[in-house]
Amino acid sequence: MRSQPPGVFVSFEGGDGAGKTTQLELLATWIEQAGREVVRTREPGGTAIGRTLRDLVLHGEDVDARTEALLYATDRAHHVASLVRPALARGAVVLTDRYVDSSLAYQAGGRELAADDVRRLSMWAVDGLMPDVTILLDLDPAHLPARLTAAPDRLERAGSAFHVRTREAYLGLAAREPERWLVLDAALGRAELAAQVRARVAPRLGRTGT
Amino acid sequence: MRSQPPGVFVSFEGGDGAGKTTQLELLATWIEQAGREVVRTREPGGTAIGRTLRDLVLHGEDVDARTEALLYATDRAHHVASLVRPALARGAVVLTDRYVDSSLAYQAGGRELAADDVRRLSMWAVDGLMPDVTILLDLDPAHLPARLTAAPDRLERAGSAFHVRTREAYLGLAAREPERWLVLDAALGRAELAAQVRARVAPRLGRTGT
Repeated sequence: MRSQPPGVFVSFEGGDGAGKTTQLELLATWIEQAGREVVRTREPGGTAIGRTLRDLVLHGEDVDARTEALLYATDRAHHVASLVRPALARGAVVLTDRYVDSSLAYQAGGRELAADDVRRLSMWAVDGLMPDVTILLDLDPAHLPARLTAAPDRLERAGSAFHVRTREAYLGLAAREPERWLVLDAALGRAELAAQVRARVAPRLGRTGT
Repeated sequence: MRSQPPGVFVSFEGGDGAGKTTQLELLATWIEQAGREVVRTREPGGTAIGRTLRDLVLHGEDVDARTEALLYATDRAHHVASLVRPALARGAVVLTDRYVDSSLAYQAGGRELAADDVRRLSMWAVDGLMPDVTILLDLDPAHLPARLTAAPDRLERAGSAFHVRTREAYLGLAAREPERWLVLDAALGRAELAAQVRARVAPRLGRTGT
């Protein structure tokens, strides 16, 4: 495991539609206004090779659970080695939309793969590099669109069950490492969320959050 | 780990130019003449997704050692799940040009990755499926082209050292599992090699090797 580089590494986690992209951009703009380099990125697909891999997962033939987990791990290994580590090494702030915890919440939450296997695979892929801060935009199922919670058909009920299971996995991860995670209620207003994100990240930048 | 399927799984290993492709084809033809289904395949690139992954390794931007190992593991996982296991399940004989042992001999032979990590990754990717028989076409460095052994420049000497290291890794793997491996001197004639391969595989097919 390599030593921690001089930059600051922040990941955003949560379900689609919880506001990760918006909050990442608000934080990026705030940091840039102070003159510090920000690298905005994402998983999967933060690199050219990663976009090819993401297309294989999303638009290719069906793949089994192991192949899918390995495609994500490969994307992540290349993302970290070619983009994240070099940026951190030159002192930049790296903000990523999803990271290791997405695999732990989504892939290990299924029935086919052991959670410990997915964790070991992810940690090996990134050679142990974890974020300084991880922001979870947590969406209570009570605030899901009505079509999901009151869904009459099988597929939509499965969607709701999937959301509940993934959310529980995220909250479990956050509870295990409270010093790394900031769990926010995604139903709060955008400005209120942004202020709480700034307050949590600011000390890492040698600043206050206002 | 799943139970062993009813087919027969044979892998061919060794350096490029040792004659794997020729011997695989001779064995395939001999088995087919007896009316049994043979699936000829290879790693990397035995599937459509695998060919995309192989192109990323061979013709894409430079990747670090971890990403490269993960690309091979992803190719292998998909190859096994989508092609090898279904063929074995219907009783076919699967002949593959390279398999797990190539990663152990080539990737784990380098300086950057721990051999145990590469082994664990490969075994997880294939969910424990190993060949019934592995044929090593072993080429003594004394039979390498003179330009390699007597090479005056740095790159060609490195090529020779690489061959020696990879060969030693293969022989070490074979020594650990003699019941799985058949080590053949690749300098023998093509017909003599083919006869020895048949003699080793025949009992698995309920036949004699002649």
